[in-house]
Amino acid sequence: MSMTMPETNPQKEPTAQAAKPNKGGLEGIVAATTAISKVEGTAGHLIYHGYNIHDLARTTTFEEVAHLLWFGHLPNQHELAELKAKLVAERTLPAPVVEVLRSLPKTAEPMDALRTATSAWGAMAIKGKPSIEQAIAVTARFPLFLAAFQRLRNGLEPLESQLDLDYAGNYLYLLTGQKPKEEHVRGLNAYLVLLADHGMNASTFTARVVASTESDIVSSVVAALGALKGPLHGGAPSKVLDMLHEIGTVQNAEPWIRDAITHGGRLMGFGHRVYKTEDPRAEELREMARVADPQGFVLSRRVEELAISLLDELKPGRRLYTNVEFYSAALLSSVGLSGDLFTPTFAVSRVAGWTAHILEQVQNNRLIRPEADYTGPMDTHFVSLNER
Amino acid sequence: MSMTMPETNPQKEPTAQAAKPNKGGLEGIVAATTAISKVEGTAGHLIYHGYNIHDLARTTTFEEVAHLLWFGHLPNQHELAELKAKLVAERTLPAPVVEVLRSLPKTAEPMDALRTATSAWGAMAIKGKPSIEQAIAVTARFPLFLAAFQRLRNGLEPLESQLDLDYAGNYLYLLTGQKPKEEHVRGLNAYLVLLADHGMNASTFTARVVASTESDIVSSVVAALGALKGPLHGGAPSKVLDMLHEIGTVQNAEPWIRDAITHGGRLMGFGHRVYKTEDPRAEELREMARVADPQGFVLSRRVEELAISLLDELKPGRRLYTNVEFYSAALLSSVGLSGDLFTPTFAVSRVAGWTAHILEQVQNNRLIRPEADYTGPMDTHFVSLNER
Repeated sequence: MSMTMPETNPQKEPTAQAAKPNKGGLEGIVAATTAISKVEGTAGHLIYHGYNIHDLARTTTFEEVAHLLWFGHLPNQHELAELKAKLVAERTLPAPVVEVLRSLPKTAEPMDALRTATSAWGAMAIKGKPSIEQAIAVTARFPLFLAAFQRLRNGLEPLESQLDLDYAGNYLYLLTGQKPKEEHVRGLNAYLVLLADHGMNASTFTARVVASTESDIVSSVVAALGALKGPLHGGAPSKVLDMLHEIGTVQNAEPWIRDAITHGGRLMGFGHRVYKTEDPRAEELREMARVADPQGFVLSRRVEELAISLLDELKPGRRLYTNVEFYSAALLSSVGLSGDLFTPTFAVSRVAGWTAHILEQVQNNRLIRPEADYTGPMDTHFVSLNER
Repeated sequence: MSMTMPETNPQKEPTAQAAKPNKGGLEGIVAATTAISKVEGTAGHLIYHGYNIHDLARTTTFEEVAHLLWFGHLPNQHELAELKAKLVAERTLPAPVVEVLRSLPKTAEPMDALRTATSAWGAMAIKGKPSIEQAIAVTARFPLFLAAFQRLRNGLEPLESQLDLDYAGNYLYLLTGQKPKEEHVRGLNAYLVLLADHGMNASTFTARVVASTESDIVSSVVAALGALKGPLHGGAPSKVLDMLHEIGTVQNAEPWIRDAITHGGRLMGFGHRVYKTEDPRAEELREMARVADPQGFVLSRRVEELAISLLDELKPGRRLYTNVEFYSAALLSSVGLSGDLFTPTFAVSRVAGWTAHILEQVQNNRLIRPEADYTGPMDTHFVSLNER
């Protein structure tokens, strides 16, 4: 049996790493200090700038959380209105970016389309050092880029943003052309809050490495998109849906899972290198999935319970929990997104965290540049081509 | 006085880093093992897979070095012919990529154009895990993407590749539409050999971090381009030219440099965090610049000698040498490239190293993911928006 692990990132307590030998993959090595978020894998806590993720997911909007990540505090009503106005003012899609998206084949992966549109927009819009204005500008446009490609690949023209809708609602509107249902906006908003930052995960680290060369904000964000695309990081949440479809019924769940565990099948959405207990985001997503799709939830929940107990029975000693992927799939599906939009929608959230980390990195910068252990030959005798 | 430091990358001997405290920026920390290249900063050596850079720069072509980096040995004549045929077969520029480049403003930075074209090409051409075929395909196209943008921004149409020209010669042809001079091809070829790899520099590290998430080769290369764009890594070689123009004459060199050192002016092209002696690449580039532009060389050489001796006189104890940027500028300028093509031309070389490292990373992969030290607040009391 193998497991998918989105954000399979060893985030241990920072006290433990100082003189430890390097285990590879930079595990246990501190690459930067950050005041943006903290993952406590053993306790199962995630905090953004001091606030626990449960309070934020249940009570705040994506815009409030973006303010928290960028400015270091939750906004008051005046500050929130100001930030929302700035985000809305940036909801423009330059015609050349639409042309770039139109040039891509309809079969292109949405992650690749988002990466390309962001790069093209940066080439025409970004000058100078990373700034908070640029962070707002690129974040505001992520839903636009993605929705435009979604429309174009379905033979439809991109839509104009609705200026009275918030970030989550406008994204859903741009995808569908319909005023989104309130419960869909609420569900997507909570998802965007939950996924907006997660310590020094691989894409955030990538963004910081690029920023540490004094490159521009879009080069950093484009690099981070590339890292998030990798199944070991952004995961493959659509495969959770495929698995649930394959299982099909509550009755089929136990034999299917037993077979997967004993015969090396893939059990999607379980296991995480950080959390030794339940991922606090999974807890929130579960409740949201229960509300969003009560019927589908019966199967998801049964599969979750069975997988945990059967893993414990058949692979004792390996305590595994559902990860953030498992209920993300159910939730994003319930708000009407197709499977290949799940990881790019993750990016629509995480771009707030990436840009916050880029701004933090450049404030007190040191080039991030480790070493390699050279294992190749030394002093090879050179022979010219004619003698080879 | 401040100095520009391209590839300002601390590459110490790998034995020294095990239990050392973390100095920040991952200095002294081993992130990966590699058999591709080794930088010996104290001795001033650079080797690619056992071969010293001097032998390679003086004797081999870029294609031979790419074979060395990708396959781990220098090719015999048959192997070289085979690789050249594959590289030539990939010299196609899909029409949609040209459309993407046409959509960009003519004022876009060539690095941003190259990043966007590469991303667009990946969206249409790349599927599956990184492979040697993909490494060849993306490397073969870098000169095409860049030259196409160079033509388009000058109001000209991109040209078809000349299949009988080698990698360096075809790049020059695509830029100018003229059969390149033999000495230009020779100079550019040596430059491409010298810059093709350099240990765990920041862009190569970025490429490996992205590859470690199991993302695709183009996502990794696009990320690396973003890192190379940063002045702390890819440098600002065109600024060396600006400095030489400002100095203007041999007579003006001493007062200008004295003033720069004592009054905090910028002395471009000196200093390197790795090399404690002369950068072996600078040595080769100096000789090439001498041959390529004997007249311009008189000023460059005088500025180099004066800068080193005046730095020694005015800032004793800080031994500084010319870095790879200093004579790169002279050489690339002598083969007809404009200043804003210097860093992208660095990428036309380094893409061979990046793709070799990506292939090495995925062969024995572990997610590269360090930690952060959290310095923000804990357990902040949550207050809802209405009460803020």
